[in-house]
Amino acid sequence: MDKKMNLIMFSGEYDKAMAGLILANTAREIDVEVNMFFAFWGLFLLRNPDTMTNKDKTIYEKVLGTITPKGPEDLPLSKMNFAGFGKKLLIEMMDDEEAPHLIHFLKGARKKKVNFYACKLSVEIMGFKKEEFLPEVDIVEAKTYLKDALDSDIQLFI
Amino acid sequence: MDKKMNLIMFSGEYDKAMAGLILANTAREIDVEVNMFFAFWGLFLLRNPDTMTNKDKTIYEKVLGTITPKGPEDLPLSKMNFAGFGKKLLIEMMDDEEAPHLIHFLKGARKKKVNFYACKLSVEIMGFKKEEFLPEVDIVEAKTYLKDALDSDIQLFI
Amino acid sequence: MDKKMNLIMFSGEYDKAMAGLILANTAREIDVEVNMFFAFWGLFLLRNPDTMTNKDKTIYEKVLGTITPKGPEDLPLSKMNFAGFGKKLLIEMMDDEEAPHLIHFLKGARKKKVNFYACKLSVEIMGFKKEEFLPEVDIVEAKTYLKDALDSDIQLFI
Repeated sequence: MDKKMNLIMFSGEYDKAMAGLILANTAREIDVEVNMFFAFWGLFLLRNPDTMTNKDKTIYEKVLGTITPKGPEDLPLSKMNFAGFGKKLLIEMMDDEEAPHLIHFLKGARKKKVNFYACKLSVEIMGFKKEEFLPEVDIVEAKTYLKDALDSDIQLFI
Repeated sequence: MDKKMNLIMFSGEYDKAMAGLILANTAREIDVEVNMFFAFWGLFLLRNPDTMTNKDKTIYEKVLGTITPKGPEDLPLSKMNFAGFGKKLLIEMMDDEEAPHLIHFLKGARKKKVNFYACKLSVEIMGFKKEEFLPEVDIVEAKTYLKDALDSDIQLFI
Repeated sequence: MDKKMNLIMFSGEYDKAMAGLILANTAREIDVEVNMFFAFWGLFLLRNPDTMTNKDKTIYEKVLGTITPKGPEDLPLSKMNFAGFGKKLLIEMMDDEEAPHLIHFLKGARKKKVNFYACKLSVEIMGFKKEEFLPEVDIVEAKTYLKDALDSDIQLFI
């Protein structure tokens, strides 16, 4: 099958990231090419907790980097988060079913060669440095997203 | 017209469910096939208030089943819900225009043979039983969604 | 290139409107036709602050018109809004990068002939009058959206 799926990951929430990554993993299993474009809050999912830096950042960028989620397992739920309580409940329920966590779906997607792109404008505004992301992340312009999406079989805004 | 629309219903909110079901009804009126896949919070829309059960559920599953919306009219707004006040305001405004409620759009979609699918992983994690959903709901894997979406003319994540 | 992008703008939030309008501007730059359909909260983006009216409105419609955002720059963030503080922070960071504001992307989209449509049912329920929107906005039914989407290369629900 010569098919392609293109996802904009906008939201930066645990449950929505989960939905996107489950789709990505499933698509790769049936040989569909997957391109994920992370913009705005979605960038938090790509942060590498081991390479965060405050070097050459403005005060705003430092504040933003500090108060926002640091990688996948740090993301809140999109609803019923209840200051983290709802998320703990969900994680317990996932464990009861032996369902993988977000970090595992992310690992799976990386292993299965999902392509990861970060939106250049979002990266600049938020002041992130390339080395703060997972190593395979490419920083690209909206035009790159668009050309890929025009040519793909599934496009979703998540 | 031999066209197909594929919607992921993720959010479990009154206004977004409304948007999805208005599109579904409209699509059926012009003979477009409609497949709706309900995942995560979206499952609340499919709950049948008459067949809820706590049998064979863990304590987490019981809590989740109790504190979450029980069917379409129970869903909150995605914004300006103000503990239900905003929703009452919206409903009053809909009544002023004699606009149908969510439950009517759901009824219409069922009558017009929209296909309803529930995401297997979400159902398992949340601990829902098949009989707690509307009778025509099929429980399927992400792969089923994906194959259908690859082959459809419209795909949206709502 | 004879391609077409179709966006449903549902959310009425500054950051999501930004995402939608950046895509719209970028698409026009590579000659892609762009149709944006504004529904529910998305309508707030189309409001013309200079032509708001309370004439012939019910009390509910007056309340809604008053407490909701009045045009693009008035929209809140979808998360971390913190009663406007988070939005101020984001705007400062955009200014640091000399990134355009939402209003500029909207101006750009209008200049580049993006087509703007407002969902008829949403307009009726919320009680907006045609003259309260930007002059080029057409009010259309869901069917019009759907026929356009069936025939487009990218469809997103934002």
